Amino acid sequence: MDADSARAQIIRPSVTIRSVRSLDIRFPTSRSLDGSDAMNKEPDYSAAYVIIYTDSGIEGHGLTFTIGRGNDVCCSVIDMLGSLLVGKTLGELTSDLAGFWYSITGDSQLRWLGPEKGVVHLAAAAVINAVWDLYAKAERKPLWKLLADMSPKQIVSAIPFRYVTDAITPNEALEMLERQSDKHEWRAANIAANGYPAYTTSAGWLGYSDDKIRTLVRGALANGWTEFKIKVGQDINADKRRSTLIREEIGPDGILMMDANQVWDVQQAIDWMKELAEFDPLWIEEPTSPDDILGHAAIKTAIQPIGVATGEHCQNRVMFKQLLQAEAIDFCQIDACRLAGVNEVLAVLLMAAKFGIPVCPHAGGVGLCEYVQHFSIFDYIAVSGLLGRRRIEFVDHLHEHFVDPVFIRNGHYFPPTAAGCSITMKRSSLAYYAYPEGGAWNNE
Amino acid sequence: MDADSARAQIIRPSVTIRSVRSLDIRFPTSRSLDGSDAMNKEPDYSAAYVIIYTDSGIEGHGLTFTIGRGNDVCCSVIDMLGSLLVGKTLGELTSDLAGFWYSITGDSQLRWLGPEKGVVHLAAAAVINAVWDLYAKAERKPLWKLLADMSPKQIVSAIPFRYVTDAITPNEALEMLERQSDKHEWRAANIAANGYPAYTTSAGWLGYSDDKIRTLVRGALANGWTEFKIKVGQDINADKRRSTLIREEIGPDGILMMDANQVWDVQQAIDWMKELAEFDPLWIEEPTSPDDILGHAAIKTAIQPIGVATGEHCQNRVMFKQLLQAEAIDFCQIDACRLAGVNEVLAVLLMAAKFGIPVCPHAGGVGLCEYVQHFSIFDYIAVSGLLGRRRIEFVDHLHEHFVDPVFIRNGHYFPPTAAGCSITMKRSSLAYYAYPEGGAWNNE
Repeated sequence: MDADSARAQIIRPSVTIRSVRSLDIRFPTSRSLDGSDAMNKEPDYSAAYVIIYTDSGIEGHGLTFTIGRGNDVCCSVIDMLGSLLVGKTLGELTSDLAGFWYSITGDSQLRWLGPEKGVVHLAAAAVINAVWDLYAKAERKPLWKLLADMSPKQIVSAIPFRYVTDAITPNEALEMLERQSDKHEWRAANIAANGYPAYTTSAGWLGYSDDKIRTLVRGALANGWTEFKIKVGQDINADKRRSTLIREEIGPDGILMMDANQVWDVQQAIDWMKELAEFDPLWIEEPTSPDDILGHAAIKTAIQPIGVATGEHCQNRVMFKQLLQAEAIDFCQIDACRLAGVNEVLAVLLMAAKFGIPVCPHAGGVGLCEYVQHFSIFDYIAVSGLLGRRRIEFVDHLHEHFVDPVFIRNGHYFPPTAAGCSITMKRSSLAYYAYPEGGAWNNE
Repeated sequence: MDADSARAQIIRPSVTIRSVRSLDIRFPTSRSLDGSDAMNKEPDYSAAYVIIYTDSGIEGHGLTFTIGRGNDVCCSVIDMLGSLLVGKTLGELTSDLAGFWYSITGDSQLRWLGPEKGVVHLAAAAVINAVWDLYAKAERKPLWKLLADMSPKQIVSAIPFRYVTDAITPNEALEMLERQSDKHEWRAANIAANGYPAYTTSAGWLGYSDDKIRTLVRGALANGWTEFKIKVGQDINADKRRSTLIREEIGPDGILMMDANQVWDVQQAIDWMKELAEFDPLWIEEPTSPDDILGHAAIKTAIQPIGVATGEHCQNRVMFKQLLQAEAIDFCQIDACRLAGVNEVLAVLLMAAKFGIPVCPHAGGVGLCEYVQHFSIFDYIAVSGLLGRRRIEFVDHLHEHFVDPVFIRNGHYFPPTAAGCSITMKRSSLAYYAYPEGGAWNNE
């Protein structure tokens, strides 16, 4: 038993879960069209938020991100899943991390409503991440550090391998993790000194005017950003006009990504992107239905060298497995709470590394930047060991509501130092944006 | 304008939707282990039920099937989607059937929770089918007849082609339907005289003892059944013992299907089915995750000549499209309310016919037999035009709660004659099984 485990043994048995509570938190973002794209025209960025209360005073916080209506439904399922945790000790949960994951995702009656997808999986993500937040806070480490300090065997024991053993076995995962073990320290130092690369989506929403976009891009360039994503897919002429505008600002060496948010059929995606190829996009994101593995593969083949990226709506590890097996994507965009939390994210990080596909997490929304930085940093330190072709999305919205918001400098994320998953929101924000009773919804 | 359309024009404008109401209906089936399988051990068969009230007195009824917990969550989403219908006339909805479908499945905030999968899609199915029930009742036809009497152009106008045009175009669908147009009459007569082939799952639940299974199989044989499905996947020795038992009863010419309800990984499915090959199963159903298109393709290749069947958890037309494109299945098991209702089922019927794969609907549950008979009969009359290799699942549970239950004779379904989708439940059953306030939940 190493020192950390020994300490954990002392702390964990004293943490018993007393209650779990969901909160329906919504931000009225549709009023300003922040976050508007070709599919999601008027989102009210929302969090189905959960707090795990324990007898130790430590709380576990988690959330799943939605865009408004239905956030209450996620909260209902969070309450059902949360009740499975009451009376359990943190030690019981962390001594069998995969077993804990299966217990939350495997309730047979709720599983029928997915399985492992949609509302129930989103709710599971919030609850599972809240347990990891509790775990990290009890260990007094940020999540990325908690994960990096776990042994390869402990990491493997946290992964739900069900349905993915034809792509990666526990033994393969163990060997991959062991190969990186001796490089953790200097990689952590490298990230602390130089940060993790990022790109910004803040300038490119469909609801913004050309003037607003130009102003935002210039501001971002002045702040050290070199990689920009814009929303496309509603009007080819508008897409060309905006792409021209942004290329003017960022020059031929700036990196430009495009995001269609699922609006096209397969052939339409191919035709549209051939029209936009002259603007040299690094990738087209979500060109079609997130369920269409074979469709993504066909698009990828047809539009090379433009890359294909998807994942923010990829429902679970089984779909990511196939996107990798079918060579359907160039960039793997995990989401921290579309996948059912840390455990399932670990499965995808390992598979992506095995298939040689860079993980570039989806972020933005509410708290997604806060969540995913932990995964990318852990991926670099302990899984892929690589930074090349990898970057985390950044959107400059709503960070002010978090107790430990992301720290960005010069287009890079710098590693969080506070204990937990960085997802704890301020009490004042939880009160003001509570739906429908909070002040934000009663001021007009 | 033909006679039917002319009459419809007269009737429809007078039907205005006044309100939509959901009901949480649950049957305590876990007490007897009816419906138990390797994944779903203690289901309480349930219906998230919906009634559309109109000013004409005609009601549209629909339901989505769940197995207990979470049925209330489906009801919450039904209420949200139902509110989109209030004030609309039936004529508005039926004059643009695909547009109606997109309006229910396309609410951008609720779509985020899927998209097109899980709780929101299940709820959409109930609402969409209730509108079709209303439509068929207003036209005074059973659903299969309503569909068979629609022109090929009308059918095509009801289909959501989004995301499937790379597999089938509206023009292809139109040509396929037109090729069958002159054979409708004698096929309808054939089904009325001889019925539509079926198989029974009633004997094969995991929770049943060997004695109970033997008794049930003998009873079914005496009633003219020749095709039997059993649940497998929990214990290979038990599976062999039961398969031996059933083969003894049904003989070498009886048809035996097996259903694993998603319990295996890909290689495990292959290994397990090689062990059971000696019992000559027609198909293995749900050998692994319903999301694993490439996994099903691998299993299919490895275990030929045993067929691979799946679909009851296939979330939408995009997944069925890929199962067909990847040659991953031998039998396409549509579900009437996992797919988002009649419109999406039509898309899958057409694609399956184009790819030459027989549709053998999933049934059982609550009302699924009542629902799917309409689709298979319509498929035979107007789409595939074939009966060979096709059969509808039958489970002899809970039919007594329906106003127009299925009529089965000699292992065949006989076409319903009452207007609507056959899904209207008796008022007394709706009251007694209402959860949690009904008598069924307050007698112990």
